[in-house]
Amino acid sequence: MTLPVVLVSHQPPDPIRDAFRGVLAGAADVVFLPELSDASRNDVLRTARAVMTYHPIRDLGVNALRKLENCGLMQCLTAGIDYLPFGDLPDHIAVAYNAGAYAEPMAEHVAAMALSASKRLAGEHRLMRQGEFNQFVPTKRIAGMTCGILGYGETGREVARIMRALGMNIQAINRSGKTDEQVDFIGTLDDVDHVLAASDVVVITLALTSATERLLEAAQLKEMKPDAILINVARGEIVDEDDLYAHLIAHPDFTACLEAWWVEPIRHGRFETAHPFLDLPNVIASPHNSAMTDGALITAAERGAENVLRFLNGETPRFIAGDDVRMA
Amino acid sequence: MTLPVVLVSHQPPDPIRDAFRGVLAGAADVVFLPELSDASRNDVLRTARAVMTYHPIRDLGVNALRKLENCGLMQCLTAGIDYLPFGDLPDHIAVAYNAGAYAEPMAEHVAAMALSASKRLAGEHRLMRQGEFNQFVPTKRIAGMTCGILGYGETGREVARIMRALGMNIQAINRSGKTDEQVDFIGTLDDVDHVLAASDVVVITLALTSATERLLEAAQLKEMKPDAILINVARGEIVDEDDLYAHLIAHPDFTACLEAWWVEPIRHGRFETAHPFLDLPNVIASPHNSAMTDGALITAAERGAENVLRFLNGETPRFIAGDDVRMA
Repeated sequence: MTLPVVLVSHQPPDPIRDAFRGVLAGAADVVFLPELSDASRNDVLRTARAVMTYHPIRDLGVNALRKLENCGLMQCLTAGIDYLPFGDLPDHIAVAYNAGAYAEPMAEHVAAMALSASKRLAGEHRLMRQGEFNQFVPTKRIAGMTCGILGYGETGREVARIMRALGMNIQAINRSGKTDEQVDFIGTLDDVDHVLAASDVVVITLALTSATERLLEAAQLKEMKPDAILINVARGEIVDEDDLYAHLIAHPDFTACLEAWWVEPIRHGRFETAHPFLDLPNVIASPHNSAMTDGALITAAERGAENVLRFLNGETPRFIAGDDVRMA
Repeated sequence: MTLPVVLVSHQPPDPIRDAFRGVLAGAADVVFLPELSDASRNDVLRTARAVMTYHPIRDLGVNALRKLENCGLMQCLTAGIDYLPFGDLPDHIAVAYNAGAYAEPMAEHVAAMALSASKRLAGEHRLMRQGEFNQFVPTKRIAGMTCGILGYGETGREVARIMRALGMNIQAINRSGKTDEQVDFIGTLDDVDHVLAASDVVVITLALTSATERLLEAAQLKEMKPDAILINVARGEIVDEDDLYAHLIAHPDFTACLEAWWVEPIRHGRFETAHPFLDLPNVIASPHNSAMTDGALITAAERGAENVLRFLNGETPRFIAGDDVRMA
């Protein structure tokens, strides 16, 4: 019996190859596009049942994409796929995103930022260098406080698990406004103002879509507590850059923890901010590295491959991109 | 019926007074030394059954201490009492320390430091300001790693609770080498080298005693993993200052999170380090403020008063300082 072909659009390092082949063992032949001979390339493109990829256009090109006649699933390996030019992708291929692929390391990163901000770690270190030793200026205890999670999907729920373990109450926003999990409030995007007003820590784990772009502008930031902590590990564009900067200047007790940026290397070829966020004492910045712990890429690869396996087994793959996540 | 007198050696703010009086309501008359008239002062000193204090010598003076004829308990309100000049205290009065008084805020501070170090928050922010955007340099995921806790008392166990909730394995050291709690290893000071070698994060929550002073010198630091995170929330003197600085210079992947210092304002009247720790990229510094969250002083006051209540009720008070914690 010939196994179906799963085409990987790039040449990953060995542990990732092993992860793909391990999950799909006995169910598919995993082949890597850059390793194909010119002779076999067209055949593989024509017969491939699924593609696993970070960048379908860049890696395959529009011509190769057109040859994917038998392909039923384009499994992206990133959690967010707002950067995909859906208009250039063949209509007959379902596109799946790798939701929650990096949920655990991202949730730890969120906890690191929330705690670092509440204990003023960076700020007090800086003041100690200037000769201050503020032993008796209270910091915040996050246990008992409220964490609002905008985007209660795979990653948001893992954030909730950790924040709950730290003693925080959870208020959350998702598409359905429903959850089986233990939360203090669950609502939809219509309830954002309520969650913003109630939360001491607000975490953005939303997908970037036309509905979430610039969800937080001046009016929404104004709803938040003046000493709240805003953590964005999703996409810069969900928060208005100018409005956030103005808010940080006007509210020195407000902290922004920025892991996702408006202009950053992977999506834009460079890192750039419209304002000097990095110089503000009430900003904690990280270079969109929350997903990047040792082993995280392997876990993400396995999760992507498991979704391909569902598809090959005739089950419905998870996290198919609907019109609402297709921005372009 | 006349209630026994409990003497507070200082003038605390109202919420603390309320905490003392709330816990001891119906069981004692709580009086505050600075508010006594000269006429009543000697009577109160003579009749007081217990004293609550931060600084018995400074607040009462040696002469007043001699007048505490009926006092059976000197309840200190700090968790560590290494600074007390035991030689100047009357022999007949048991001294209790306020163990774990600040356990919860301190444990959160430890988690903040461990996560901030493992995610390199301060370092990557600094590098971003220099134009680097290290999206693909892996950070550590602490879930699954091992946390060694030197000093598995009230505070150490609360640290363990949080670190366990974050997915860490726990190895611990206490006086008995025994515990009912779920740990992967429990031992005594004889096992320090084992715990140091096994741990990714090492937290010092020990009391400073003659047995723990300079417990970690060059030889012990060498036992640790080269990329370990050392967190000291106890007393600077437990780690050799020169040896730690040399270790940090020689091991750039090693991080020291220093909350307790060798020379600091409360104990020494000034903050001073023998080496420029604050300038090292692999140091996270805080001004001994881990206990100082809103409400923490009230909780600590209640815990101290509860121990006084035990004593007044004829029970054995907890955390009586034995010879092993009496350094002076």
